[in-house]
Amino acid sequence: MKRIAIDMDEVMADTISHFLERYNAHFGMSLSTDDLYGKHLFEVIQEDHKPLARDYFQQEEFFRTIPVMPDSAEVIKALMTQYEVFITTAAMDVPCSFHAKFQWLQEHFPFISPQQIVFCGDKSIVAADYLIDDNLRQLGNFRGEGIIYTAPHNVNEKRYRRVDNWRAVERMFLG
Amino acid sequence: MKRIAIDMDEVMADTISHFLERYNAHFGMSLSTDDLYGKHLFEVIQEDHKPLARDYFQQEEFFRTIPVMPDSAEVIKALMTQYEVFITTAAMDVPCSFHAKFQWLQEHFPFISPQQIVFCGDKSIVAADYLIDDNLRQLGNFRGEGIIYTAPHNVNEKRYRRVDNWRAVERMFLG
Repeated sequence: MKRIAIDMDEVMADTISHFLERYNAHFGMSLSTDDLYGKHLFEVIQEDHKPLARDYFQQEEFFRTIPVMPDSAEVIKALMTQYEVFITTAAMDVPCSFHAKFQWLQEHFPFISPQQIVFCGDKSIVAADYLIDDNLRQLGNFRGEGIIYTAPHNVNEKRYRRVDNWRAVERMFLG
Repeated sequence: MKRIAIDMDEVMADTISHFLERYNAHFGMSLSTDDLYGKHLFEVIQEDHKPLARDYFQQEEFFRTIPVMPDSAEVIKALMTQYEVFITTAAMDVPCSFHAKFQWLQEHFPFISPQQIVFCGDKSIVAADYLIDDNLRQLGNFRGEGIIYTAPHNVNEKRYRRVDNWRAVERMFLG
């Protein structure tokens, strides 16, 4: 059975929308994902907003309340009938997120065993055939085939097979 | 550069001694590691003590205060000059331990980057050449060469190269 590793933020969890909603409400702005095209989040945030905006990522509650990416639960459940699935998230970058990420998975993906969850840093440690991830550094580190999940910051990347949403993941792996 | 993955409990952290100290004080007992020879912890604990003794492993503070295994810091630092080192601990079995384990590593092994830390369940997900671990199930799951770190419960196991302490790890990997 082939093994698929799946990233959380911006793949299973719609972290960018969650951030923008909080940011816009907080600062009276109207940034949308279109404004982020080809850019990282902190390239489009006003300089004087950055300290408070960065602080969102130090709040356990921020991670606990991220919306689930459309169709991800249904497709992951289907993938599990034909593949080994592991969830591999770079939680070591944000230690405050450990519990929130674990509880979020228990709530929204209760069919994924804790035995299949990995909190890591560098994803070169992940032994899997495929990694579905939005992060270019992690796709570069990974030793199997990286599949790029479209996020505003990675739209210009050409080196990997690309999926734009979970229906595209379903087509790629379940035909 | 070859990569070594290293388990925490009973390898870097002297979890059994820590448990026995607490258990003996709590129940006025005098169990020692000799009593555990060839057995798992909960095979030697009196039946009526088990619920409270199991509860130690649900206390964050228990994990935060485990003593460091002798020579482990010095030898791991030396290994890092010739190998990639990752710390791979089955923290998903005890979600209450996430923060304590992270802080414990930061305190006692500050030279290990969070990027090299992995909290997982099933260690078949670990991509490394070697895994130093006391747990037979995890050594069986791992895809590289398992090196068994001696603990009372595993003394009768013959399938792996064995290390009895950190000086033995040093001799095996640094000659």
